[in-house]
Amino acid sequence: MSDPRISALQAEVPSLRLLTDPADLAHYGVDWTRRWTPAPMAVALPATIEEVQATMRWANAAGVAVVPSGGRTGLSGGAVAANGELVLSLQRMNRVVGFEPADRLLTVEAGIALEAVQEEARSHGLQYPVDFASRGSCSIGGNIATNAGGIRVVRYGNTREWVAGIRLVTATGELLDLNRGLVKNSSGYDLRHLAVASEGTLGIIVEATLRLTDPPPDTRVMLLALPSFEVLMEVFQALRARLPLEAFEFFTDRALHHVVAHGAQAPFDAAYPYYVVAEFACEGEAGEVQVLSAFEYCMEQGWVEDGVISHGDTQAAALWRLREGITESLAPHLPYKNDVSVRVSAMPGFLARTQALLASEYPQFEVVWFGHIGDGNLHINVLKPADMANADFVVECERVTRLLAETLAEYGGSISAEHGIGLVKKAYLGSTRSAAEIAVMRGIRRALDPAGILNPGKLFD
Amino acid sequence: MSDPRISALQAEVPSLRLLTDPADLAHYGVDWTRRWTPAPMAVALPATIEEVQATMRWANAAGVAVVPSGGRTGLSGGAVAANGELVLSLQRMNRVVGFEPADRLLTVEAGIALEAVQEEARSHGLQYPVDFASRGSCSIGGNIATNAGGIRVVRYGNTREWVAGIRLVTATGELLDLNRGLVKNSSGYDLRHLAVASEGTLGIIVEATLRLTDPPPDTRVMLLALPSFEVLMEVFQALRARLPLEAFEFFTDRALHHVVAHGAQAPFDAAYPYYVVAEFACEGEAGEVQVLSAFEYCMEQGWVEDGVISHGDTQAAALWRLREGITESLAPHLPYKNDVSVRVSAMPGFLARTQALLASEYPQFEVVWFGHIGDGNLHINVLKPADMANADFVVECERVTRLLAETLAEYGGSISAEHGIGLVKKAYLGSTRSAAEIAVMRGIRRALDPAGILNPGKLFD
Repeated sequence: MSDPRISALQAEVPSLRLLTDPADLAHYGVDWTRRWTPAPMAVALPATIEEVQATMRWANAAGVAVVPSGGRTGLSGGAVAANGELVLSLQRMNRVVGFEPADRLLTVEAGIALEAVQEEARSHGLQYPVDFASRGSCSIGGNIATNAGGIRVVRYGNTREWVAGIRLVTATGELLDLNRGLVKNSSGYDLRHLAVASEGTLGIIVEATLRLTDPPPDTRVMLLALPSFEVLMEVFQALRARLPLEAFEFFTDRALHHVVAHGAQAPFDAAYPYYVVAEFACEGEAGEVQVLSAFEYCMEQGWVEDGVISHGDTQAAALWRLREGITESLAPHLPYKNDVSVRVSAMPGFLARTQALLASEYPQFEVVWFGHIGDGNLHINVLKPADMANADFVVECERVTRLLAETLAEYGGSISAEHGIGLVKKAYLGSTRSAAEIAVMRGIRRALDPAGILNPGKLFD
Repeated sequence: MSDPRISALQAEVPSLRLLTDPADLAHYGVDWTRRWTPAPMAVALPATIEEVQATMRWANAAGVAVVPSGGRTGLSGGAVAANGELVLSLQRMNRVVGFEPADRLLTVEAGIALEAVQEEARSHGLQYPVDFASRGSCSIGGNIATNAGGIRVVRYGNTREWVAGIRLVTATGELLDLNRGLVKNSSGYDLRHLAVASEGTLGIIVEATLRLTDPPPDTRVMLLALPSFEVLMEVFQALRARLPLEAFEFFTDRALHHVVAHGAQAPFDAAYPYYVVAEFACEGEAGEVQVLSAFEYCMEQGWVEDGVISHGDTQAAALWRLREGITESLAPHLPYKNDVSVRVSAMPGFLARTQALLASEYPQFEVVWFGHIGDGNLHINVLKPADMANADFVVECERVTRLLAETLAEYGGSISAEHGIGLVKKAYLGSTRSAAEIAVMRGIRRALDPAGILNPGKLFD
């Protein structure tokens, strides 16, 4: 505790747990980007809302920058503390606060993991339907701060749709109890929705009240091999019109190659340009007939090169692994990630333009695609050649990202579909938000955080 | 055009249609509250976004207050112009801009009526599911500005859920193109959601991109007579667990009395304390069995005094008329309206407290209840005695509303569930939003409208 400010904070909030060990600073100062060198001043681990408030009052008065911290599974540098900030980790605030069956509302502290929320919902015979692969590590506060999406958005929407209340501690230590689980509340600006996707720049999310819904239906999973992206769009429209879609994900043969090399079982004997993993509600015999008839329709159109429909949970899980295992299988190649979106209808045109761009600009790099067709969301992973220094690789990828951002702007798309802006995409925010919008965001930021202490340097700062 | 400012505006925007006839000022200066005397300076009827922008640039420079105006069916005074403001009516901007089937997105100008949006959706084999009785007159811009709810919220949510994009003209005349129909867009503060429920204080909504969904299923409508509110809650939980609810509305015998006096057919021979109109998806024989079995379950519990299930659309419409006709049947009694909400689970306690409060404070007035149980939303209509002056009546009702607001604050409820705050509920905003929240709202307002020209005096101003 060499920094006198840390002693001052400890004196101000005697019960607050503070870490200053270099290993802790290194651990809490980074997220999954690993691009910045962690250098926080200290790590605060409050156990109560009161401790969060007292910490923020102190930080505001002392002019100390604060980085809110959840599971640090983010991919945009939003939780990076590389400039002597105080990391405020919600890790110890991970309890279930309460569940009310008549409301179907689950209230949790913000540090709870997504998977624990899903399990708690199941224990009440209900479902929290937002889902993605980092479910065991990411926190619900971080999910809200980035409006996390994932693999069920086509059916259930993003995190935002499930947030019925947020308790937010502002930069000055005020506790705002936003919306309180009300279904209908037309009483002025909905600051709850402003907190969603604010990436820690408007306040600390300390508690959330989440809507739960009916448990998921019985489902079947389909894996289809397809000859082209145009056919993939046709299949999406046809299946969406015929079946109750729960998920509709695509990936390329390059992606399949990596996930199979990483231990998954190859689904087909031959290789095809595109694959779809689709999941549908399928209840009873009528459901079976519906799924088979939709599958046969796609076959009859000549769209499907090969395909399989799951029988039982084990096979369904094996098919899902081909999609969900991609990120992990690419990790050893230190991929540079783009996470972009356009309107669904703009996907074919945008994809063709982008493929041409990447082919001409990245002839030397392997590029792996996958994504969520129903959401208009593409994940582009550029793999680092083993013999290239990471800094040089990032410089080259950022050059191309600027070109990609220009294409996105033409299509009215977004430079960040679901990862957030953070540090990684700050330079490209102008491709997605106009100068006037960014000016309004800055004005709102100043209204809530006049001293500019909350996650400075992120988003647009 | 005696006011020189009107001539200046006309000179600045020569194509702009302006009305200054006293009859027009009276027509455009009020909403359905009819409590204030209309006194706008003039009425602007722009035909294009560019005219809206030019008008706002002029108003901002000249310091002229602007009241945005849709269908003026509001019940909170949000569209009232009683202080020499310029009314900016979106009435001429009522076109369908475009529909994209792959996105299921419908883009419309803000002045279009809700019913026209619903019809346009149907013409594409889809549905815009937000619905309420003023559908023929209210505008989609006004729906968004108040986050209008209605009779299908239990199934489809409020207007907010269906807004995929908003084009907003700010106080300074900037055009913000917010979210552009993207499904996933985590790129900073979602200003689209800030515009929803902003009641014209943050900008002029000039265009909206709306999500459409699958057409409504075949349904059956049930009318149940129930002995108590406790039983009504039990029936709600039981039916929600057993049937795909499309709507679940309740009203009291006093409400039924008025709607029958207004021409509707009495459904039962005897009178009962509470009635429910519920609508369920019901497809095929399996659906029929499910509806009958749920109905029988409620009968077996001894909950239902009498009941009927619709056979065919005509009977369904007749049952719905008993609920939808209430507001019109009360109109001749110049009712004072409270539109409050609490969490669903808090409804029984809150209702008991409120009934006691109104019985002791309003012994001389007839009070008619109805509302949306699944949304925790109660509509309380206090009827004006024929021999009482309206001003005296309002004073008395406002005294009791202050007590009601205190009860609401205890229960964490909202003084405005779906009507908005406007002028009518401004004095009670503190029951629903904390002083810190209101201060943040003011700060946001200043960031977007530094001169304070947009709908001044409304909401919290």
